Amino acid sequence: MAHHEFTPDHYHTSIGWHEPVLYIAPGDSVATNTVDARGQDRRGEKVTERGNPMTGPFYVKGAEAGDTFVVRFDKLYPNRDWGWTGKRIASNVLDPGFEAGFQPDDEPLRWPVDLKAGTTGQPDTLPGLQLPLCPMVGCFGVAPPRGQAISTATSSTYGGNMDYRGFVEGVTVYLPVEAPGALFFLGDGHAIQGDGEIVGTGVDISFDVTFSVDLIKDKRIGWPRAENETHILVAGNARPLDQCVEHATSELVRWLEEDYGLSAQTAHSLLGQCVEYDMGNVFDPAYTMVCKIEKALLEQLGAKRDY
Amino acid sequence: MAHHEFTPDHYHTSIGWHEPVLYIAPGDSVATNTVDARGQDRRGEKVTERGNPMTGPFYVKGAEAGDTFVVRFDKLYPNRDWGWTGKRIASNVLDPGFEAGFQPDDEPLRWPVDLKAGTTGQPDTLPGLQLPLCPMVGCFGVAPPRGQAISTATSSTYGGNMDYRGFVEGVTVYLPVEAPGALFFLGDGHAIQGDGEIVGTGVDISFDVTFSVDLIKDKRIGWPRAENETHILVAGNARPLDQCVEHATSELVRWLEEDYGLSAQTAHSLLGQCVEYDMGNVFDPAYTMVCKIEKALLEQLGAKRDY
Amino acid sequence: MAHHEFTPDHYHTSIGWHEPVLYIAPGDSVATNTVDARGQDRRGEKVTERGNPMTGPFYVKGAEAGDTFVVRFDKLYPNRDWGWTGKRIASNVLDPGFEAGFQPDDEPLRWPVDLKAGTTGQPDTLPGLQLPLCPMVGCFGVAPPRGQAISTATSSTYGGNMDYRGFVEGVTVYLPVEAPGALFFLGDGHAIQGDGEIVGTGVDISFDVTFSVDLIKDKRIGWPRAENETHILVAGNARPLDQCVEHATSELVRWLEEDYGLSAQTAHSLLGQCVEYDMGNVFDPAYTMVCKIEKALLEQLGAKRDY
Amino acid sequence: MAHHEFTPDHYHTSIGWHEPVLYIAPGDSVATNTVDARGQDRRGEKVTERGNPMTGPFYVKGAEAGDTFVVRFDKLYPNRDWGWTGKRIASNVLDPGFEAGFQPDDEPLRWPVDLKAGTTGQPDTLPGLQLPLCPMVGCFGVAPPRGQAISTATSSTYGGNMDYRGFVEGVTVYLPVEAPGALFFLGDGHAIQGDGEIVGTGVDISFDVTFSVDLIKDKRIGWPRAENETHILVAGNARPLDQCVEHATSELVRWLEEDYGLSAQTAHSLLGQCVEYDMGNVFDPAYTMVCKIEKALLEQLGAKRDY
Repeated sequence: MAHHEFTPDHYHTSIGWHEPVLYIAPGDSVATNTVDARGQDRRGEKVTERGNPMTGPFYVKGAEAGDTFVVRFDKLYPNRDWGWTGKRIASNVLDPGFEAGFQPDDEPLRWPVDLKAGTTGQPDTLPGLQLPLCPMVGCFGVAPPRGQAISTATSSTYGGNMDYRGFVEGVTVYLPVEAPGALFFLGDGHAIQGDGEIVGTGVDISFDVTFSVDLIKDKRIGWPRAENETHILVAGNARPLDQCVEHATSELVRWLEEDYGLSAQTAHSLLGQCVEYDMGNVFDPAYTMVCKIEKALLEQLGAKRDY
Repeated sequence: MAHHEFTPDHYHTSIGWHEPVLYIAPGDSVATNTVDARGQDRRGEKVTERGNPMTGPFYVKGAEAGDTFVVRFDKLYPNRDWGWTGKRIASNVLDPGFEAGFQPDDEPLRWPVDLKAGTTGQPDTLPGLQLPLCPMVGCFGVAPPRGQAISTATSSTYGGNMDYRGFVEGVTVYLPVEAPGALFFLGDGHAIQGDGEIVGTGVDISFDVTFSVDLIKDKRIGWPRAENETHILVAGNARPLDQCVEHATSELVRWLEEDYGLSAQTAHSLLGQCVEYDMGNVFDPAYTMVCKIEKALLEQLGAKRDY
Repeated sequence: MAHHEFTPDHYHTSIGWHEPVLYIAPGDSVATNTVDARGQDRRGEKVTERGNPMTGPFYVKGAEAGDTFVVRFDKLYPNRDWGWTGKRIASNVLDPGFEAGFQPDDEPLRWPVDLKAGTTGQPDTLPGLQLPLCPMVGCFGVAPPRGQAISTATSSTYGGNMDYRGFVEGVTVYLPVEAPGALFFLGDGHAIQGDGEIVGTGVDISFDVTFSVDLIKDKRIGWPRAENETHILVAGNARPLDQCVEHATSELVRWLEEDYGLSAQTAHSLLGQCVEYDMGNVFDPAYTMVCKIEKALLEQLGAKRDY
Repeated sequence: MAHHEFTPDHYHTSIGWHEPVLYIAPGDSVATNTVDARGQDRRGEKVTERGNPMTGPFYVKGAEAGDTFVVRFDKLYPNRDWGWTGKRIASNVLDPGFEAGFQPDDEPLRWPVDLKAGTTGQPDTLPGLQLPLCPMVGCFGVAPPRGQAISTATSSTYGGNMDYRGFVEGVTVYLPVEAPGALFFLGDGHAIQGDGEIVGTGVDISFDVTFSVDLIKDKRIGWPRAENETHILVAGNARPLDQCVEHATSELVRWLEEDYGLSAQTAHSLLGQCVEYDMGNVFDPAYTMVCKIEKALLEQLGAKRDY
């Protein structure tokens, strides 16, 4: 149960079977930091190339293909006083041929962030509006199967750039291990973000992060699973969104049947009237949809899992 | 501002340019009732063919193509002590080839409803679980353009079978008028429903309904708009879900710019960090996605509309 | 086996349960004509509103829900010396945000047609190019189920605006009867057209048409089936194209198994290595994909059908 | 203009920035061979793991990011007397919940191949049917951007597992260079294949291959371009198929405008009435659609390119 402090000196714009930066054990925690999606650190200095650079990978001793990697986000908080956003809703989120009526340059929009008050706003485009921070991690994952190294622009079974605003402090995520050591990466912190990341960014910013890891041996899962205080949830990553729905729903059914012992009929009945969906990104090459169910309902059904 | 009591004696399984059942004026309210999607009324008797039969159409005097029809759901409540649901999550919501592992018959599952306690549950499949009612209307709309009559299985610009669980009592909806009198239909009440209507039904049940209507002359809208106490929202209906997102987002941008006077840059900035999406049905021929924004944010920006 | 000459005096922009214009019997043929998609006849005069007006409906005596309607296109030929096209590839056929680099007005482009030489070309945009005519019918179908009347902009199980360039003279089409008399409509002739109808039109033009009809009693089919000299084929109409592929492939498998007596394993093996797909429109609300197989292969397998 | 003989001793199941197996120069040709998708060589021996193993990568001297890599398939022919196929049409190609009515095991179906006669058939499932070989290469590509290594199950801008039956002997393909040396891989030969690769395979078999390479310096392209004797064509790889259509059509417009000097209006007019689409795979994670135009039409327009 060691605690590690780790300061990155290089970053990756793909999630893959890269050289580990730190070896840790199940139960350990790590305090580290992440740069923003343009490679800018806490001082605003560009320390690496843009394109969603990740901190990591962290090697978890004992992790092998066929296990489940567990990560808990103990702390996720911006570490500087400004972030930036895109200026326009992406063309693929609007009707084909929709005329936005303005042509902003490619320079990002700067958003002052008040770390103490816990607010942000954009004085020029949103005068008078102060929004409470809701820090979340846009991109994280473990090495994908077959020795692949996949761009941090996209996502799939191994996690990746899901840009789901439910991945906040306190959440625990489960990911399928494919490479020895799992090889965990994270980055792309957002001070806030709307559903869908429809301007292509949240308020992108550098983060101080603390996470702790664990391992479930000999347990195969198909898609990123997670839980917070109230829900268990699954993220499906693909295109179109319909396929995300299919992946996430199928995996939640499997979770309920295999780990909570629900019968198929109970799982289908429960989800039929009580399931909830949240939309992750609709900007990246793969979109994200989250399928979730309240823990309280499982408790009322007397359904428990043993981890 | 007359109040009408209307008892239906026939129903429609398409939304179209059908003979009006009642002529009403802007400002009027109507108390009526709806059968369930299998044509069963408050006594459980099958009074019309199955296939999502609608009450209506109601003709609003003065409504012409190019106007906006307004309806407020003043009361939406079940009027009998049982509903029914499908038994299985639909194949199109699960991965291709997903094996559900059980083969239920086609008979719907009966759900006792306690109207006084305001709860429902399914004793066999969900033992011990009592769910609070959240009555919503699955299908409603006005006559579509070009003299069309479109099955109540699906939905589009005119409304239809959206099965969105946000269409509850207290919500006001705006629909584009295409036919003289607008011709408003409604039906398909659900005592509760999960997001997506993934078993093909909510707890389908007959309803007592009161609604009031209004008219905005010479105002064209593109998709169903609505508001509740906290949000304004737009429903986009199409396939795949990506296209629903495009329709709903484009229409919300137009709404913010045209009626609230936001500049394009402000609208894009606001939605980028604050937009929310809810998923309507992913069961019907057309899927539904809702794009919404908090009214409080518009107020803080000083943005108002004049209706 | 009567032959009818029919001159339309009104048209429909929806395919539905409309008043028949002519009662005919199985085995009969009809010579008639169609206006172009803007309602212009052989003289170029606008005789009806634009929006893909159809000639018909023709009532086939004895046709009832559950039968299959059969139509053979005996003659399909333009009857005037010019047609017109859209000027730009539709936004939904190009990448989101693709800049076409030119902004044509909405006036269609006029294409002179040499009926004797059997060629067409566009002297300004395609100088020096003469294309051989390949006349095809863009939109035809029978009344859809449930009393619906559906815009001639779109398509589904009943046919409709498929804009598939394989629907030429000599082709026989099979459609599922839903309304008494089947109620057959046709229109939207194109002198030529590229795959996908990506500028939103072919060379749209008025047609002289002769077709003959037949009926297969008590035979239910799911989607438009057709045959030409070399192939049997099925059209699937939906969105996205993936869903068209699913509909068309499933229906072709059913056709091979039910009417040609192939075993499931033979049908899957045959299609796996020999199936062909053609793309119909990718412009209309519903897209179209055609799935087909060579008749010669069926003959070599000794597979025959009895109609 | 050297000719190389290369015998592979290891293979890759991802296309990425792997160690080159041979350094060649623009103008050179290479004779080599490929194993089938299960890793079986000319003798039928399993010499590497299954999962679409590739021969390569071949390093082309002088190739840098921003160039275009050119490969011509001089020879593509099976080198053993049997191949194998999947037994069932994939679930994602059929309607959700479609019941195939048979449950084959996972063993592939063996297809005898007569190399001399140039035919293949499957005596049990397709008795009496002999099909002419049409050898094609299912998967090939160059290293993708950002140091990625991407599974040979899928495809994107760099090529990959497109399973398009137009990639036959005599075709020249153009691919965007991202890595130094381009790093060309190929494999997954099919003796024949239906459109869409709907059973998940063609008649998969080991190949003897000869290819020659070239380089166009300082020329950026976006998607795989190719040409055969009659057409120029572009492959778009994504999901859903709609997106493939968008990518392929946009890239063909760019090709016509940039390299053939067509005006935008001419390019749009030409494609509108003359474009053709072929469907590549609809089995893999990314689907493939090909957009093409006849060279003869370009010649008639006097349009030429300078390479």
